[in-house]
Order: sequence, then structure tokens, then C-alpha cells
Amino acid sequence: MAQYDLVVRNGTLATASDVFRADIGVLAGRIATIGAKLSAGRREINAEGHIVTPGGVDSHCHIEQRSSMGVMTADDFFTATRSAACGGTTTVIPFAAQYRGMSLRQVVKDYHACAGAKASVDYAFHLIISDPTDQVTGQELPALIKDGYTSFKIYMTYDALKLDDRQILEVLSVARRERALVMVHAENHDVIAWLSEGLLAAGHTAPRFHGMAHAPIAEREATSRAISLAELVDVPILIVHVSAREAMEQIRLAKAGGLKVYGETCPQYLFLTADDLDRPGFEGAKYMCSPPPRDKANQEVIWQGLVSGVFDVFSSDHAGYRYNDPEGKMKHGRNAPFKKVANGVPGLEVRTALLFAEGVGKGRIELPQFVALTATNAAKLYGLYPRKGTLAVGSDADLAIWDPDKEITITQSTLHDAMDYTPYEGKTIKGWPVTTLMRGETVAEGGEFIGAPGKGRFLKCDISPATVPLGRRTIAFDPETGSIEAAKQAEDSH
Amino acid sequence: MAQYDLVVRNGTLATASDVFRADIGVLAGRIATIGAKLSAGRREINAEGHIVTPGGVDSHCHIEQRSSMGVMTADDFFTATRSAACGGTTTVIPFAAQYRGMSLRQVVKDYHACAGAKASVDYAFHLIISDPTDQVTGQELPALIKDGYTSFKIYMTYDALKLDDRQILEVLSVARRERALVMVHAENHDVIAWLSEGLLAAGHTAPRFHGMAHAPIAEREATSRAISLAELVDVPILIVHVSAREAMEQIRLAKAGGLKVYGETCPQYLFLTADDLDRPGFEGAKYMCSPPPRDKANQEVIWQGLVSGVFDVFSSDHAGYRYNDPEGKMKHGRNAPFKKVANGVPGLEVRTALLFAEGVGKGRIELPQFVALTATNAAKLYGLYPRKGTLAVGSDADLAIWDPDKEITITQSTLHDAMDYTPYEGKTIKGWPVTTLMRGETVAEGGEFIGAPGKGRFLKCDISPATVPLGRRTIAFDPETGSIEAAKQAEDSH
Amino acid sequence: MAQYDLVVRNGTLATASDVFRADIGVLAGRIATIGAKLSAGRREINAEGHIVTPGGVDSHCHIEQRSSMGVMTADDFFTATRSAACGGTTTVIPFAAQYRGMSLRQVVKDYHACAGAKASVDYAFHLIISDPTDQVTGQELPALIKDGYTSFKIYMTYDALKLDDRQILEVLSVARRERALVMVHAENHDVIAWLSEGLLAAGHTAPRFHGMAHAPIAEREATSRAISLAELVDVPILIVHVSAREAMEQIRLAKAGGLKVYGETCPQYLFLTADDLDRPGFEGAKYMCSPPPRDKANQEVIWQGLVSGVFDVFSSDHAGYRYNDPEGKMKHGRNAPFKKVANGVPGLEVRTALLFAEGVGKGRIELPQFVALTATNAAKLYGLYPRKGTLAVGSDADLAIWDPDKEITITQSTLHDAMDYTPYEGKTIKGWPVTTLMRGETVAEGGEFIGAPGKGRFLKCDISPATVPLGRRTIAFDPETGSIEAAKQAEDSH
Amino acid sequence: MAQYDLVVRNGTLATASDVFRADIGVLAGRIATIGAKLSAGRREINAEGHIVTPGGVDSHCHIEQRSSMGVMTADDFFTATRSAACGGTTTVIPFAAQYRGMSLRQVVKDYHACAGAKASVDYAFHLIISDPTDQVTGQELPALIKDGYTSFKIYMTYDALKLDDRQILEVLSVARRERALVMVHAENHDVIAWLSEGLLAAGHTAPRFHGMAHAPIAEREATSRAISLAELVDVPILIVHVSAREAMEQIRLAKAGGLKVYGETCPQYLFLTADDLDRPGFEGAKYMCSPPPRDKANQEVIWQGLVSGVFDVFSSDHAGYRYNDPEGKMKHGRNAPFKKVANGVPGLEVRTALLFAEGVGKGRIELPQFVALTATNAAKLYGLYPRKGTLAVGSDADLAIWDPDKEITITQSTLHDAMDYTPYEGKTIKGWPVTTLMRGETVAEGGEFIGAPGKGRFLKCDISPATVPLGRRTIAFDPETGSIEAAKQAEDSH
Repeated sequence: MAQYDLVVRNGTLATASDVFRADIGVLAGRIATIGAKLSAGRREINAEGHIVTPGGVDSHCHIEQRSSMGVMTADDFFTATRSAACGGTTTVIPFAAQYRGMSLRQVVKDYHACAGAKASVDYAFHLIISDPTDQVTGQELPALIKDGYTSFKIYMTYDALKLDDRQILEVLSVARRERALVMVHAENHDVIAWLSEGLLAAGHTAPRFHGMAHAPIAEREATSRAISLAELVDVPILIVHVSAREAMEQIRLAKAGGLKVYGETCPQYLFLTADDLDRPGFEGAKYMCSPPPRDKANQEVIWQGLVSGVFDVFSSDHAGYRYNDPEGKMKHGRNAPFKKVANGVPGLEVRTALLFAEGVGKGRIELPQFVALTATNAAKLYGLYPRKGTLAVGSDADLAIWDPDKEITITQSTLHDAMDYTPYEGKTIKGWPVTTLMRGETVAEGGEFIGAPGKGRFLKCDISPATVPLGRRTIAFDPETGSIEAAKQAEDSH
Repeated sequence: MAQYDLVVRNGTLATASDVFRADIGVLAGRIATIGAKLSAGRREINAEGHIVTPGGVDSHCHIEQRSSMGVMTADDFFTATRSAACGGTTTVIPFAAQYRGMSLRQVVKDYHACAGAKASVDYAFHLIISDPTDQVTGQELPALIKDGYTSFKIYMTYDALKLDDRQILEVLSVARRERALVMVHAENHDVIAWLSEGLLAAGHTAPRFHGMAHAPIAEREATSRAISLAELVDVPILIVHVSAREAMEQIRLAKAGGLKVYGETCPQYLFLTADDLDRPGFEGAKYMCSPPPRDKANQEVIWQGLVSGVFDVFSSDHAGYRYNDPEGKMKHGRNAPFKKVANGVPGLEVRTALLFAEGVGKGRIELPQFVALTATNAAKLYGLYPRKGTLAVGSDADLAIWDPDKEITITQSTLHDAMDYTPYEGKTIKGWPVTTLMRGETVAEGGEFIGAPGKGRFLKCDISPATVPLGRRTIAFDPETGSIEAAKQAEDSH
Repeated sequence: MAQYDLVVRNGTLATASDVFRADIGVLAGRIATIGAKLSAGRREINAEGHIVTPGGVDSHCHIEQRSSMGVMTADDFFTATRSAACGGTTTVIPFAAQYRGMSLRQVVKDYHACAGAKASVDYAFHLIISDPTDQVTGQELPALIKDGYTSFKIYMTYDALKLDDRQILEVLSVARRERALVMVHAENHDVIAWLSEGLLAAGHTAPRFHGMAHAPIAEREATSRAISLAELVDVPILIVHVSAREAMEQIRLAKAGGLKVYGETCPQYLFLTADDLDRPGFEGAKYMCSPPPRDKANQEVIWQGLVSGVFDVFSSDHAGYRYNDPEGKMKHGRNAPFKKVANGVPGLEVRTALLFAEGVGKGRIELPQFVALTATNAAKLYGLYPRKGTLAVGSDADLAIWDPDKEITITQSTLHDAMDYTPYEGKTIKGWPVTTLMRGETVAEGGEFIGAPGKGRFLKCDISPATVPLGRRTIAFDPETGSIEAAKQAEDSH
Repeated sequence: MAQYDLVVRNGTLATASDVFRADIGVLAGRIATIGAKLSAGRREINAEGHIVTPGGVDSHCHIEQRSSMGVMTADDFFTATRSAACGGTTTVIPFAAQYRGMSLRQVVKDYHACAGAKASVDYAFHLIISDPTDQVTGQELPALIKDGYTSFKIYMTYDALKLDDRQILEVLSVARRERALVMVHAENHDVIAWLSEGLLAAGHTAPRFHGMAHAPIAEREATSRAISLAELVDVPILIVHVSAREAMEQIRLAKAGGLKVYGETCPQYLFLTADDLDRPGFEGAKYMCSPPPRDKANQEVIWQGLVSGVFDVFSSDHAGYRYNDPEGKMKHGRNAPFKKVANGVPGLEVRTALLFAEGVGKGRIELPQFVALTATNAAKLYGLYPRKGTLAVGSDADLAIWDPDKEITITQSTLHDAMDYTPYEGKTIKGWPVTTLMRGETVAEGGEFIGAPGKGRFLKCDISPATVPLGRRTIAFDPETGSIEAAKQAEDSH
């Protein structure tokens, strides 16, 4: 066997099931060997006392994307991926976002144009579908799926993005036929609009009213509806950024009923609360995202869901808008009413470390579950496994090397995104990914980015094995084939 | 005391709580006395061996109403109320149905014009709201409520009638402010449309496919959504004609959670099944209604819900269209695809007797619950109590006198509506209301109608005590007042 | 018709379903007529402005009964029934309590000996079964049931009383065969014993530790188990004095599943809390009962269960032991460890008024539900209906006449039991039964008892209609007949 | 690096999270390296086209154990472990079973005496505790835990073994204090006894009545109770051999509520049904085990629980008694009444292959879940990980090498236990572990056992990480310390 390009020596390796001490031998950017006392590599990293996990896969982040209100995210593909790398994340899956009237194919081209020269870690794209015309569902989507864009995101709210139930059914049908995974932003649009108008009419314009407008019941209702529609079509779905216990319970029930409904939550629902939206002055705007952080008791419920397997994926929903920037949060004016404030919080860099410290460090979860939530499950769900998301022979040598004892006080000045604030400013955590390797090359070390723009490669996603339908129709009619199954079968499905 | 106009002697009286033997003395159309051995009346009815219940209140029936597809019901106010009287029902609450663009006030006038000269039993009106403009919600509804129209019905499906969630929120808000009761037809429109189009495209046009198009999941989803919206607004609602176990469970859960969600079911969900829709030829059309009858196992679940209190009201949803009539079921052609068949089944005359025979007679429920379901609860919920719906001193002397041993084989030729079929043809039941009295006058006896058109009076409904909100907001914001309640309270509402 | 012995004139009558103004004419102790403007009676009571309900039926009270620790209740049949009468209650159902080794027949005789000359209101007996020998289950019980003792109470805790699961199955089987209603005190004995010993060993002897020893989980577990055993035998049961939300939810679930499981709660779970057990000094002993009052939030849950129909019966569980009496709470010494303090609180006199004020007066329930919970349902469940529990022609003229506006501050000195304290001391309530009539005779008026010992009559209970089994076996084997039913049926029961 | 003792080349490796192609290099009985193209080993196995999983861990099997009715299992440590090895299982955890009056330490010694010379695969012991005297709980158990016996099994049924609730609480308390894992056989003893006696009294003695006597409700009740007791003590438990949907739902609910309740199921609940107990003649005896196989629909529910994570462990509950053996099933006579038939079915050899074929092969689960259920989870739960249960560097080289395409028709003559029947006779499955390696040595190959008695080593179990209590008391009292926590905390635990 050829000499290893790199040996990571003496680390404690953690996968989604195992924790054990071993060396990792890397050849040509891939993991060639996992073993004890490997022969010397051209390069060596001593991971003694450190934990080696797969590089993080952040499957929900908004990069160089213009919001539905026309505000561009602070981060472009360079700053976003630089920040990711410094936080131990080596794969990002941002969105190629269609607005109405656009060709999806063109949208994808546009995002590639942004990403190609700038991305410093590997990336794939989810497709946001806001205009499921026959052209889109009948031709563009099937072709794009073949080209490696195998997951869609749809919205149940936002004027510019929302699909009605019929459109959702059409998209779900395509997903079923073509085996794509549909991600759903589940909030009831009309509820939010009704509450928002009421609040604004009563003069309640401050950031904290954003939290009230996005009531938990809006999230519960939409989650329940999305699940019903997916059950009808018999297609798996993934509910993104679940914030409220009521919505979480819908997912738990669906899973208990045997449905393939996956759940995602994010750091903001474990570490921020509605009180943050009520900080003095306009500061609450920094914590505004949709759905919003809920109350303290709700945090514990979300933790409990994470621990007990309601959530499959822990991603950042990174969507950064600078606070002191006329093109950022403030674009529509200082003290703009909450509906005019750009929505979203950053999180690409601190996502994994927050969960490491508060999840693993505090004994809520074990290392394998941490790895599953931050890397493996996303890679599997989105068709990037086993290339990404694990430590296995043949996988890309994407590694995060953690010093479990390193204490960090999070502060924006040490982060690597393009933001001017972090919602976690001042929070002290224990455990940090001190070295990040992408395909065997060090891209971050000791808090410094040492990768380069353009080094990240586009990843074609495979059809996800998670997208196999149950074959359990709640109706005796198969809309795909037009056939009427024996009534018996439909009855069995109760 | 003056001599009674009428004494009903020696009957076994049944109210929503009690069963006991007594005479009833009637004066001026009202119950003056309930007692043993009352003095002689000008007129006497011997009810020995018979059961005397309050006259039925059928709070869900379509009379002289044009369907959303433009087909007029077979029954006008005369035949409908004649049929009601012969089945022991002395109060009907049909609909004044607004179509888009109409003034509600004018709609009400039009229905009064139909009813006034023809109704042979007393009647009130629910208002169907399909066009909740500011004019309607801001002015017409408050005024109509004051005039005695205190209940609304809204639709979540049908192109011509459906409201979107925002419109539902507006109507619920009016209902909360003005204390009206909102009835909801809960089926997800888009689901039904998607399934229908799929079925028709595949050539599945027969009546039984109507049942598939109206999938239980469509009913469950809309029921869940309606409850969420009502919970948000904090206003009681009533889900009408619940057919599917899945929808029923949503109501049960809402009740268990302390919400004021009322439920209604109908004979067609206890006595018909999906198999009836699949009868040979086009015969299935006779059993088409929305939501449709479900399978046999589902019948038992609905019975169980009725017994255990999930359902508060048992009404007919009478909506008759003749089978062999070019203006009836067939208006859009013999063998028309199911979407073109007029939807609805008759039931005004047999509603109470079916429940008496199969509920009381077979030991599933006791007499008081029978009375509650067929008369008292509806009278209370819709503001007609204590004038209607019970046997109490001062109440209208509306009585149904039952021979519990009389066996009847239901057949259309003996019924008194304008239909040419009954879905219960050939069914033998035990127990029949052999005499019906309205305000002390006999309107039906021995299977013969002996009332007269125009004798029925319009009933102004009071504000229903059922419409008091819980005062338990799921949000800290009160859209009514614009005030922000203490966050604590909102938290308490979990 | 003969002249009425009594006419109660112009009251607002309330039954379990109705509220209306009428006079009541009484002849020979029974209600002869309910009507407007009745002819003059030999005696007249003006109830103008007052509410007339059926006299209360308190179906759970301990009178002249020695506790399992050997302490005699403060009240004998005279003081207890005097107190009942003054609180508007005209029927009591105390217990004839078997201890191990006793003949049930003899026990019944003994209690009759106590009651006969002293009872001032009518009474029946439940049988406490602590020793279900073959003699008891095979001979005594069937004979006693025929003699009008149609309900049993069994205990899942207390050393001297508890049955094991096998004994419970035997008692339930008798109840099924003979159609008796089994009341269950549902707390897990071993859990309480284990906690108690642990608490006492750690020196935690004060009254408040009684509350901890009787953990909600002990109540939940036993409730769940009792329901399972009853489901197995296919026999209705009634869970008495439900205190904890967890136990309540078991009953709700059982009802939702179609089981005939009835629930009872008591004033102490609506109006007292665990904090009362922690009052200074030894005062907490006054509030000790089993199960104990829970926390404030739990009170609201129990209210919600009462409103929504989880509870069928609201009784006092009156079990009074004087506080300053060497034979009362203190029998085992001042500051005795909690296991040695006599357990129970009084409530016969204030039960109905507390619910009237806080339930009806504060809008939580309507008058009919108040009547159902305090009188009608118990009368029906225990086979005393229609003689007791309602206002119907032919029923005993047992009436409570309420002044809904009368404000009372509860204080022991104005109560009529033999106690030296009331747990509700100082509580001000609005609404009081100013006159109580038993079989047409006034037994209390204006706060004074004007009945007489010995006037109360023993009531033979009928077989309760509530005791009809579901006929829904969870097993295919019928232990009664030894027959194996078709497997199909057992499967259907899922 | 030294030359590998063995290289397993080109296999598809499967762990509880990953599937990838690699070679495995073994040194001194342990996995030294996992990698591509490893250097040549002293010995080589070509696993091309095969799947390499960790050797199975069967954590529930009865070996050389006398049943509570005094029948000795057919298998001794040699035949049992030979059979295990031939089925790809390299670790077994049978029981050291205490009967009342025995010293646990002596029991352990006795079982070691049996196992030492005969075991051909590695083994640990669970301790069956039937007599939790102070000596046992206070001294023997703590000492035995230190010696590597870190899991207990307790019974809620069987005259000779059952603990009452108080004893269960004592055992759970020890487990909490000493961090042991308690396995619970959860069936309600009295229910089974009552049903059994009824059945036998009615002459229903055949094997199928065993299934009726062990009603699902007995399993549900005991499962619910065990969970309540564990929740009270705040200690994790594992419910073994869950057979009925009703019991499974209790575990699902407990998990959803955040409790640490683990579940185990077995092949007999996926592949046998109650119909098997009803086979002609006395043949049903072959399928008798406790709890018994349920109906067909129940199988699907158990599958669903397995897929969705209700079950953590899939073990055999191997307890073989020969059919045609006067010391086996028949010990108490041909056609003995069901209570006298030795209870149990064999399964050590076919356990993993059945799940492989029907789970992985039929697409119900993926390979990683198969590995987790058959090896990894048990190793982790019982403190054998990472030595056993996975493919990781440093782990014992216990491997099962599967030919996924090999079709086998199960027949007793090819199995390696001491039985004379298999309940799966004639079942054809696809996929078989063609080679089994224990610590790098081949112990089975091509259907032949090539290991040797005495080669198996005793494994001391570590304290399982799964045994950390939640620290969430449902009571404010800590029986361990005697301290009263702030009431607040107890309230939070709702």
C-alpha cells in the first residue's frame, strides 16, 4: 500500500454508532484505513486527547440568497463556507431559491455562478420551489433530480414563496414519483398575517411582536397539515426548523403512526428564547427568525425531542443579516415594524460546538447521537452518504478534531462569517473543533481559516434511500397509476 | 286555573335527564303543567304505553336551497316541514345561503319569502357565509344577529362556498365579538379537488369514487385546522356532519383539552356505508353526500363517539335531490361523473326514529341521551331553549308521542317529503312517533300529516350560552382590543 | 285531585337538563305536579327569586364508621344527617364496612342498628368488602344485593382493607354476575408504604409528608390497574375521590376507549391544596385525607375534568375526625407521625354550596350540570333513581331551595356536624340552600335544622342500569360460562 | 506493524451506523485495522460479495437453567453456544437464576461451574432475583455488580419467581444506587392465574389456552406498572420479550415522555402467531412461550415498533424444551394441561438470520438497524461495549460473515442446539451467516461448528451508561438521601 498522505493519530473516533481510539490513514482525500498504529504518513496530526468526528454537514443554510423581502444575506459563498470550516463543518447544503416566474434551471445556474469560485467547503443545493408550474414539475424537476438536486424545500408561509395545498400536493407527487425529499417550512400563513396585521394596527411594531405573530398554533397547524398531505400522497417529508412543542408533538405522533416524517431543529430553539426578542432598544431584531425562539419551558421540550429521536437533523438555518448595516436587518429603516425586519440568525460556525457543549458535555446525549444529528443523518437523508457524514473507509476525509476541554467564549470578533453580531455573544462553551480537514486538507486550525475560496466542490446528491414511500395509501386510489386498489388494502391502512 | 286546552295523559315522559310517568297539561300552546291525574282538558290524548318526548329539533337541513352546482332541493318549505312533522320533528333550522356577491340581508329576506307561507313547523335560519366582506362582517352580521340569526355556517370546501383560513379567522372573530355560533363544514378542498381530478382523469366517474375523493384524511385535516383557528381566536365552534373516525378523534382531543368544540353527526354515518355508493348501475348516486358514508368499522366508531359524548347533536343534513328527475341528481346527465351529481341525502322524517330504534331500542343509549341528541342540545346550542327542545313548564307544547313497539319498514311511499327515494328503503325499525304536536296542535297522526302550510312560525334565536369564549388565549395578544396580556397568562394556556 | 299538602311556588326549577320557572305541588311526600299557577296547597313556600333543585345525594360519606386505624368518625348518623340536611342534601349513602373475618350480613345489621333511630335523612349503604371469602362472594353478596345493597367499595391500599388483584378480580366477577357497581379506592399500596417508610425513617413525620407519601403516581398506577382488571372482567367500575391529574387522565382515556368507567371527585380536590397540609404547627392534620389535595395547577385540571365530563359524581367523602379530641385526629398523640393521624375531612354540609358558588356562580358549569353532579347521577348510578335525585312527577319531594344571592362565610360554629373544625373555615361563598325539604317536610330552614332523628328511611337500592356490561371481552374466554367465544370476537375488541 | 493474524478481505462491513467496503485486519483476537487493501495476513478470508457484521449478542437466553416448574432446558452451555456460533452469535448473556432461599453468590458460582468448561462463545450473566432479602440487596448485589454482574432480571409473574410491588421497588432502588440495569418480565400474575384456573376448570387444557390465559391486558397492565415504579424510583428499566401491541404502546408512551424505558422483542412475536398454538394434536406445545405469540395483526404492530425504535434489543429468549422427551415439554405428561407444559421456544441459532431475511431482505429496516438490534445495542446496554457488538478498532474480532443471497430452509436437522424441533421448521429465508469468527478464530463455517467447548470466556460487564437516572423525580422526596427537594422541582416534573 502506498504511503498515507496523512495520518491522524491517536484520536478518539466517533461515528453515529461507535466511539473508539484509532488512527486514520488518508489517501487521495479519502479515508483509506482506520486502525491502530498505522504506518507513518507524509503528514501527521496528533489527535491524542482529542475527539475526531466526521466534518459537520449543515443541511439548512441560506447563502448569498436574497430574502423574500429583497434583502441579501450578509454571507456570500466565501464567508459562509469559511465560517463553516472554522466551526468544523465541511459540507453545506444551501438553497437555490426560485421566485415566481423564474426557471428553476436558471436559478440553479445562477447559484452555481455565485458558488463556484467562492465556496471553500463542499456544497450541494436544495431547490426552493415557489412556482410549481407544469413546466417545473413535469420537466425541470425530473431533469434536475437526475443532475443531483434531489431535495426540494417548500413554504407554507411568506407571500412570495407560499404554496397552497394543491400546489403542495403537486410537488409531493413529483417527489414521490421521482424519489426526492421535500423539506417543509410549516407555518400557517393566514394565521401569521392575521396576527401581524392586528399587532401592527394596534401599534405593536417591536421585534418581540414578531414572536407573537408567529404563534405556536400556526406552526402546529401547518405541521399537522403538511403531514396529512404527505400521508395522503404517501411520500416522506422533513419538517424543517421545528421550534414549538405543539409542532414537535405532531411529528412524534406521525412517527409513532409509522409515517416517514423527519424532523429538524436548530440552535436558536435550544439556546434562545422569546425574551431575547424583547431586549432593550431594537436589539431584539438580532434574534428574529421564523419560526421564532419560544419560551424557556419550550427549550426543554425541544431538547427532549432531540434526545428521544423526534429530530433527525440539527442544522443552523443560518440566515445572517447584519445589524448595523443599511442593507441588513435595517434595510427598511431603524425601528422598522417587525414585518419589515430581515428575518434570520447566523449559526454556521457555532452550530456543532453549541450542541457538543450543551448536549454531549452536559450529558444529555452521547457522542454517537451528536455525530448523527450534526453530520450522518443529514448526509443519509440528502443522498451524500457514505461520501459525507461519517468516518468510514472510502469516505471523504472530512474531519473535525475536537478539543473537548477547550473553553471558548463566543464572540463575533473571533467568528469568520460576514456578520457584525452573533446571537450567542458572551456564551461560554466547553469543547471546540480545533482542526478541520476537508478531503484530507486542513481548512481551519486553531481558530484560523486556512482553506481557500474555490476549493469547495459541488456535490451531486444521490436519490435518498429515505424517500422510499411506505406503500401505505390512506386511499384506495393510486393517483400515480390511476388504479383502484382492493378496498381491503385501504382499510388495512387504518 | 283555566281548563287545559289539551291533556296528554299517562305517557312516559322523557327529557334530556329524566324519564317518568305523568300527564301534560297544555294551555295556549305551551306546557302549563306536568303532573299526575291532571284535571280534564278540552281535548285529551291517551298516551298510555307511549313515550312522550319533546318534538325533534333538526338543526341541519337544506330546504328550498339551490346547491352550489345550481340544483334546487326537491323539498320546499311545505314538503320538508310536512315530512319533519310526520317524523316527530317540530323545529327545523335550515340555511339562508349566501353566494358570493349577495347581500346577506337580502338572502335572509329571500328565504323568508319562501318559508313564510309554506312552513308547517316552526323554523329558524342559520346563515351560510361565503363572502365575508367588510360590509358583511362589519354591518350585516351584527345587525342580523340582533334580529335572531345567531349562528353561521362556513365551508372549507366547494368552489362556490369555501373560505380561506384568513376569511375563517375574520368570521370567527365576528362570532366571538357578537357571540354567534359558527358551524363548520370541515373537508380540505384542495385534497378533494386533487383526488377528484385524478379519479376522473383515470376514468373513475361512478358514484363510489365520490367516496374516495372525499378521503377521511381530508376531513381530519380540515377538522384539525378549524379547531386550531377557533382555538386561536378563542371562540366555540361546531363541526357539522362528522363522518370519519379520524375527524371525530380531533374533536375528542379538543374536548379533552378543554376547548369548546361541539360535534354533530347524522344518520347516514350510522346506517349507510361506502358499499352503498357502489350499488349496481347508477344507484350509488342515491347515497352520495359530503362527507360520504365510510366503511362498516367506521360506523361503530361513530356510534361510540355518539354514546360517549363526542357528538352533541344528531341532525339529518337533509338535502334531497330526486333520483329520477331531470332537475334532481341527474340534472347533469344520467351517469354523470360523480362531481356533477347533486350531493345529499334526505333524512328529515326518519332521523329520530332511526336513532330511537337503533340507539335506544338496541341499548346503546338511554332515552335521555336520545332526547338530548335529537332535540335539547340543538335547542340550547342555537338559542331556542327553553322554548324548544324540552318538556318543561312554559315551553312550547311540541311533543312527539312514540309507540315504542310499533314496527315500521321504511319505504318512500309512506314518507312525506318530495323525494322519490329514501336511502333507508326496506329497513325495518321498531318505534315510531305516532303523534306529533306543535304548540299543542296535532300536526301528524298515525302516519298522516294533519297540519297546514303557513302554520309554522319563524323563531328568532337568542344568543347561545354556548358561545361564551373560554377566555383562554393561546397568544398573549388580544386582537379584539389590541392589548398585550401578561406573558404569564399566555404561558398558562399550554 | 286532592289538595296539595304543599306547594312550592314560583321557584326556578333546575334538573339535570332543564331550568324553568314553575310551582311544585306535593302530595304524600312526593312530587305530584310541576306547573304554573298551581292551586293552593295546605302549606305554601314562596320560592320567588330562588332556585329549586333536587335534594343532594351524597354518595360517598363515612358515618359512625371506625377507621382502619380504629378511630371512630366524629359524626354519628344523627349529626351527619343533620349536617347533610342543613346543606341541602337529603340522601346519604355511607358505608357498611367489613373488616377481615366479619360476616357482611352482620356488618349490615350493625350499621342498621346505628342508623335506624338516628338518621334524619334517607340513606342507603354501600358495602365495603375487605374479605371476599367464598362465603362472602358466593352467598352473602348475592343475597345482600337482592336486599338492596347493590354497590360495593373495595380498597387497593390500607393494610386492613386492601384486596390483591386476584381478590379484585373475584369481586368484579361477582359484580358482573349480579349486576352490582364496584367503587374503587385506587392507590398503590406498596408505593405508599415504601414512600412512607422512607419519609418516616428520614424523620419526615409532619402532616405534609402524608401528601408526599401518597404520590400522584401511586394513584395513577392503581387507577390504571383497576381499569385494566375491570376491562378484563368486562364490568363497569367507578373510581372514587380522584385527586390527581394523572389518575384523571386514565379515566378519560378509558371513557374515550368506550369503557364504562365512572369518576368521582370531591370538594377537597377543588378547594384545598398541598400547601394546606403544610400549615404551621400540626394544623396541616386538618387537611389530611387520602388521596391528598394536590397543587394549585392540579386543581384547575380537576375542574377541567369536572366541566368536561370525566367526573360523573361530586361527593364529599365526608370522614370527620375532630382536631382537638383525644379520640379524633390526635388519638395517636399530638404531633403523631403522619401515618398515625386519622385520615379524612368533613364536607357533608358544604359540598353542594361550594360547587354552586364556584361552579355555577363563577360560570364554570351550568345549573343542570350542577344538579347532575350533586344529585341525579349518583341516584342513577346507585339505583335510587327516579325516587331520588331529580324533580319529576312521582319522585320524592326532596328539595333544596337556594338563595343564589345569599353570601355565607363558612365557619364551623354555624355548621351542624359534630366536628370542631372545617377545612373551609373563613371561605366566603355566594349561594346557599336556605330551605331543605325531605319528602315534602322541611328539615332545615334558615340555617337551622328542624328535622328529627329517626325520620330518615332506609332506601333499598335497585340494580343500577349503569352496571350492564359492555359485552366486549378482551379475551375470547368467558370465565362466567366457561365458553370460548369465536376468536373473531376477541379480535374485534381491539 | 506486525503481520495480521487474519485479514477478512473485501467484505461489505456494516455497523450500527455505517455500511462500506473494507478489509478487516485482526491481531491477537482484536480488530487492529479497517481499511482498503490491507497487507496480507497470516490467514485470509475472502468476503467478496458478503456482508460482515459484528457477531451477534444474544442478551436473553436460558441455558442449563431449571424452569420454575423444575424442567431443565434441553441445552447446556455447550450445545447452546454451539448453536449460537452457527447462527452468527458470538456473545450470549444467559441467566444465573436465584430461587427463593438461595444465596445469589452461590447461584452465580453454580452457573459458572456449568459454563466454564462448556461454553464455546463468550458469555456474561444476568442475575435473576426472586428473593430480594436485605442480605441480597444490601450485600450480595453490590458485591456482584462490582464483579461484573451488572444487570438483574425480575419477574412479575410465576409463583416461584414473582416479586410484589414492594420488592420491585427495593430492587429498583438497589439498581439506582449501584447503577445496574433491571430487566422486567411484565405480566400480571393474578390475571394469568385467574384466567388459567377458569380455563382449566372449564376443561380448556390444550396449548392454545395458554395463549388466552396470558391475555394482552395482563402484559399491558404489568408493563404500565413496571414503568410507573421505575419512574417513581427514577431508574432506567428494560421490558423484555414484549409481545402485545398494548404493552408496546406503554413503552412508546414512556419514551415519548422522556423516560429511560428500553424495550426488547423476539423472533416469536414477529414470526409465530396464536394459530400456531392451535396446531393439531399436542403440537401447539412447541410454540408455547410467555408471553405467547399473538395474532397476525399484532405481528405487524410489533414490526412497526421495531422499525420505529420502540424496541432497542432483538433477542431470542431461547428456552428450549424437547418435544419428544420425557424430561422436556412432556415432563408432566402427554397432553398435560397447559399450565404443566414447559414454557419456551428455542431461537439462538436462527434469531439473526430471521431478522436479516425478513427485516433487511424485505426492506423493513436497513443493515445498520439490524446490527444495532442484534448486537450493538445489547452490548451497550449491558456494559460489554466496545469490546463486543461492533466493528471498531480494538474490539474483539467477533464477526458474522453473511452471504446475503444464500437461501436456507430452516429445519431442525441442520441446527446445532439440543432440541428435537424448531418452531420455524420449513421456513425459507434468504441470507445466512456462512462464517462466524470469535476473537479472530473461526467457530462456524458453512453450517458446521468448528469451535470447541471451553473456548468461550466469561465477560465481566461494566456498569452500563444506560443506567444513569434521569434525575427527574416525580416526588419531592429522595428516598436515597432522605432529603426533601424544593417542591418546585417536583412540580416541574409533570
